[in-house]
Amino acid sequence: MKAVGGKVYLIGAGPGDPDLLTLKAVRALAHADVALIDDLVDRRVLEFAPRARVIAVGKRGGCKSTPQAFIERLMARLAMRGKVVARIKGGDPFVFGRGAEEALALARAGISCEVIPGITAGIGVPAALGIPVTHRDFAHGVTFVTGHSHDGGGPDWAALARTGTTLVIYMGMKRLPQIAAALRAAGMPASTPAAAIQHGTTQQQRHVIATLATLADAARGAELGSPALIVIGPVVGLAEQIGRIGLERRRVA
Amino acid sequence: MKAVGGKVYLIGAGPGDPDLLTLKAVRALAHADVALIDDLVDRRVLEFAPRARVIAVGKRGGCKSTPQAFIERLMARLAMRGKVVARIKGGDPFVFGRGAEEALALARAGISCEVIPGITAGIGVPAALGIPVTHRDFAHGVTFVTGHSHDGGGPDWAALARTGTTLVIYMGMKRLPQIAAALRAAGMPASTPAAAIQHGTTQQQRHVIATLATLADAARGAELGSPALIVIGPVVGLAEQIGRIGLERRRVA
Repeated sequence: MKAVGGKVYLIGAGPGDPDLLTLKAVRALAHADVALIDDLVDRRVLEFAPRARVIAVGKRGGCKSTPQAFIERLMARLAMRGKVVARIKGGDPFVFGRGAEEALALARAGISCEVIPGITAGIGVPAALGIPVTHRDFAHGVTFVTGHSHDGGGPDWAALARTGTTLVIYMGMKRLPQIAAALRAAGMPASTPAAAIQHGTTQQQRHVIATLATLADAARGAELGSPALIVIGPVVGLAEQIGRIGLERRRVA
Repeated sequence: MKAVGGKVYLIGAGPGDPDLLTLKAVRALAHADVALIDDLVDRRVLEFAPRARVIAVGKRGGCKSTPQAFIERLMARLAMRGKVVARIKGGDPFVFGRGAEEALALARAGISCEVIPGITAGIGVPAALGIPVTHRDFAHGVTFVTGHSHDGGGPDWAALARTGTTLVIYMGMKRLPQIAAALRAAGMPASTPAAAIQHGTTQQQRHVIATLATLADAARGAELGSPALIVIGPVVGLAEQIGRIGLERRRVA
């Protein structure tokens, strides 16, 4: 007897701009009976899911949010009833944001699940400003971390400073002064170029480009809040040259 | 007088599967007069560029390759003649692979350029095996590095080991024994789960899952070669649980 049942697509919607959805995501959305969409995802992606009942599952830091266990049970229950469920998450499902936990919960419940990668904010958002997260003359690679750890402590900023990789920090705005101080204490030069970008790749995009020493003040002065991304490393210094092209492009167009 | 001219789209084609192209990439390809495509990119993406003259610009490690300066001059020359140029690169244009250098060269030549992000192999390839590069119980984040540096030296493996981030190593197969030894010398446990994946997300995908101590031998035994991706960290241990769902999915389908 052939097994019958629903399934869950764990879909990465990218950093903001709905055009950064993949073809694979669009095809999965077309089949969805139910769409569970995160608060921060642009609602225009739902145009690709015309058949789907939409359930918003907010998980904004600090505000009211849908408990993680509830989301996991809801997905499993819907799939067991034979529904095709599109779980739409910002960025990539497996880069922060608990996608791994959701995939594990579904696996434990015996639910069929397919992960569809998305453009993570840590790559797509800097690119929109003309910041390449790697350049072989300026960085040994790139590291993505969150501003805080699950256990309440932070990442090992001293070790991170020594890697020589570009640092991309998700959810770090509230602790930006402490993070900058820890990196400087570990020997990272105060003059290291650094940027903070809010609502990257969307019409609401706002940013500041400063240095490790001045970023926290610059971000406060510009009233940048969450959700925002922090990028620290010499590659940030390329934004002026590479980003200028984008401006010229808009003039030409 | 309105400026007139061509432009260059620096497009990330993703890790292999053509369905991982973004909508934005597909739209840019539709306008392309010329497509400059890297050797490792699946030729099926060219179906989205029906008007384009196709120029293959191979850059395979170790084999004959098109000099970088030639590619940069060619793009600039075509754009200055008014052509819309699609420069199609594997993965993401700004994660390794010299996209940053190409964007800078175009900026210096005054050429209009737009960067279209792609799914980087470091995220998309592990996901295809059921490996989430982050999980808050197992990693503080994720670091992407190459197996060798521009200057001939390697990254600071000791610092990388201490970050507590998942390590994703591009172009590291040839130096895998040395990399594993350096990480162990820095205190990373020999039992740390580790994987090597060749041709990820494609029909030719092959992989081994082992430990930091055994990965080099396992990869040699399986005759895995380049291009391949190496993933090291406790999250690799989740592949068995999460990856199994994918297998079940294929059985059900």
